[in-house]
Amino acid sequence: MAPRDVRALIREGKINGPTAGMSGGYAQANLVILKKDLAFDFLLFCQRNQKPCPVLDVTETGSPVPSLAAPDADIRTDFPKYRIYRHGVLTEEVADITPYWEDDFVGFLIGCSFSFEQALINNGIAVRHIDEGTNVPMYKTNINCVPAGAFHGQMVVSMRPVPERLAVRAAQVTSRFPAVHGGPIHIGNPEAIGIRDLDKPDFGDAVSIREGEVPVFWACGVTPQAVAMNVKPEMVITHAPGHMLITDIRDESLAVL
Amino acid sequence: MAPRDVRALIREGKINGPTAGMSGGYAQANLVILKKDLAFDFLLFCQRNQKPCPVLDVTETGSPVPSLAAPDADIRTDFPKYRIYRHGVLTEEVADITPYWEDDFVGFLIGCSFSFEQALINNGIAVRHIDEGTNVPMYKTNINCVPAGAFHGQMVVSMRPVPERLAVRAAQVTSRFPAVHGGPIHIGNPEAIGIRDLDKPDFGDAVSIREGEVPVFWACGVTPQAVAMNVKPEMVITHAPGHMLITDIRDESLAVL
Repeated sequence: MAPRDVRALIREGKINGPTAGMSGGYAQANLVILKKDLAFDFLLFCQRNQKPCPVLDVTETGSPVPSLAAPDADIRTDFPKYRIYRHGVLTEEVADITPYWEDDFVGFLIGCSFSFEQALINNGIAVRHIDEGTNVPMYKTNINCVPAGAFHGQMVVSMRPVPERLAVRAAQVTSRFPAVHGGPIHIGNPEAIGIRDLDKPDFGDAVSIREGEVPVFWACGVTPQAVAMNVKPEMVITHAPGHMLITDIRDESLAVL
Repeated sequence: MAPRDVRALIREGKINGPTAGMSGGYAQANLVILKKDLAFDFLLFCQRNQKPCPVLDVTETGSPVPSLAAPDADIRTDFPKYRIYRHGVLTEEVADITPYWEDDFVGFLIGCSFSFEQALINNGIAVRHIDEGTNVPMYKTNINCVPAGAFHGQMVVSMRPVPERLAVRAAQVTSRFPAVHGGPIHIGNPEAIGIRDLDKPDFGDAVSIREGEVPVFWACGVTPQAVAMNVKPEMVITHAPGHMLITDIRDESLAVL
């Protein structure tokens, strides 16, 4: 189904679950909505930390329309589920944020790993959490992001086990897509980036790692959400994990070459 | 000479000319300084138009230190020459902007084509304006940038003639460097992008185009300056053409793969 049609079903409440696998070939996006007074620092944080925070679109102040990523979409209704945070605390989970919308809101659409996972699969590199039907395992690391204004924090990474002989290919394939996290930030030893136990992810679900496989770590779009929480702003709205906006941007058009 | 040493000579006024060819292998940067109230829209403009406006660093409000690109540099003194624009009109050209500095200034360092020219040369693709000892020819096009807030305008491109058999290689080589304008935006027919006469560039100098060569056009860092002028802010400070900041960033480290 075309992105516009899926978005219509989401808007009408007929789709209310995770969007993984929908409208294959089109980029899906993470969401962070902040008030305008924090927007410059947050955009600067994303600019300084492009691997975890690749910006796909930023709405004009007060406008719910992502005019570059999906000009007929509405970020208030077209994600299946949202999370409302007040002063850093999750207070509500809702399917429509229209009642919460304010004139000084700015929405940031952040690239998502679904896009490069398709590129991996196209190259014969299976994606374990898809095969196991779970959410990707995500871990807090000891890698400090470059701060900007009030925004600071450590990078969150996602992990996919890859056969050793395909690890370099996985790095090549995903490096083509800097707009959706790009190449891995680390291959191998989890402790080198501050991860103690791969079986205990901080977000998502653990996956099996087979003999002859190496863990490969990519910067994760949960980072900007975690960083926004650190600031404890009066209000932040994000998508609920896995409940993304399906944009009109073709994954392949995001490749730099 | 190391970037830090060249910057010291520039700061002391011992170097006051164009920086082309200095500290080979290190990225040089264009400059746009604006007041904070315009900074979000300008950063958003750059984010939406990354080919002409690849951001290398943004200074904290009021700080003259480009902490990511050259932590011991000072953007008030380390460019050999600056231009001061008031309400869109060039009013002064100076070697030191310390007397003009204000607490709400934000400096944007924008990637420069010198970096990818080295990559072309390394691949056996000669760069005509270097060989002819002139400034690169630059042209206004009919390609609209994506606007952001008050910032809008058309893309400026630079042109380098390339032997037809090397045009694809030139595209490949420069595509590795999205942080310094990336791959060409056009190859061949100038009229397709609104350029009438290659012998009459809007900025820089014309270069000879030889038999069997095709003009190749890259997005140009003059674009954000031209766009900033359109807004006619109370004050904008830029570097003088060719008089760049030499950063501590190695060109090769800007390659995405």
